[in-house]
Amino acid sequence: MSLKIYLAGPDVFLADARRVGMRKEQICREFGFEGLFPLDGDAAVAADHVKIFRANCLLMHRADIGVFNLTPFRGPSADPGTVFELGFMFALNKPVFGYTSSAADYLQRVHGVPVPGGEPNSRLWDCNGYAVEDFGLSDNLMVVQAIRDSGGSIAVVEEKVEPAGGAPLAAFEAFRACLKDISETYRGHR
Amino acid sequence: MSLKIYLAGPDVFLADARRVGMRKEQICREFGFEGLFPLDGDAAVAADHVKIFRANCLLMHRADIGVFNLTPFRGPSADPGTVFELGFMFALNKPVFGYTSSAADYLQRVHGVPVPGGEPNSRLWDCNGYAVEDFGLSDNLMVVQAIRDSGGSIAVVEEKVEPAGGAPLAAFEAFRACLKDISETYRGHR
Repeated sequence: MSLKIYLAGPDVFLADARRVGMRKEQICREFGFEGLFPLDGDAAVAADHVKIFRANCLLMHRADIGVFNLTPFRGPSADPGTVFELGFMFALNKPVFGYTSSAADYLQRVHGVPVPGGEPNSRLWDCNGYAVEDFGLSDNLMVVQAIRDSGGSIAVVEEKVEPAGGAPLAAFEAFRACLKDISETYRGHR
Repeated sequence: MSLKIYLAGPDVFLADARRVGMRKEQICREFGFEGLFPLDGDAAVAADHVKIFRANCLLMHRADIGVFNLTPFRGPSADPGTVFELGFMFALNKPVFGYTSSAADYLQRVHGVPVPGGEPNSRLWDCNGYAVEDFGLSDNLMVVQAIRDSGGSIAVVEEKVEPAGGAPLAAFEAFRACLKDISETYRGHR
């Protein structure tokens, strides 16, 4: 029996989501895993958003491991739907792994700065006056530490799309690196 | 025994986080609940981010109900740490409720538009070419539907801060409305 991996991420919002999902499932098979891509794109399910939600929850219950595309989406952090699913699978005590095509850490993306004239080593703040976490992590503490505490890791392989220079959302290279990490972690368990 | 409510939200990033947390705990007492504010601000814990993470997870396990401040934070969605915790408590089958001081729905905040010349009733897209969920919800599907499926609700009380006009992050009015909803839902269970 191959390990079942839930493939969480904002990939479902890509114009070619179905193709990206099939390619990721194919890469899973190359590593001897079974990939479970969320059903948002499935016509019978996608017509009803309550069904999408419940189908995704069922898939997460069925999966042995969660793999999360943490590439920033519409802001400095991972997609909130993806992060919800990370919390869900972590609470179920399933191992969770992450990957991203963005190499910057959270502090760099938010541009946290010290208060002018403030004490050394005091907290950093964004342009709206909200504190910025300064833990040297790639995203919000809860996201990163859940992955670490579950025994997982975050694979970072920087990719840039020309000419805009943004990190490509599908993050295929980091995805491969993540599956390689999982493969090494679970060697002999398949 | 009063019901214990975990107080999730980006409030921990406010400059006066400790004061906001104490005020929310006080409002909980007015309704006969015990509020549990995350420990990020606790000096002994805050020095170690691994401790913050684990302390918050323990608090969520102890709580009977989760109440989530979903006011948008650094983008069109709720704070990712908050959303992680929503997924966590939902997976533990705890009732989850939300509140926000922003009355706009997700589609309005992202400015999704149809593809020019596309088919009627086709999907909407953002300026980067990513699909925008068009379910008439206040945030990402997984966030909103989890709350509905758990039997909870989202309290929306619009507040604006002059002169910038943004939604205030602490969202005290919506918080009170949310506790009122919980109080009515759990009448007699205390």
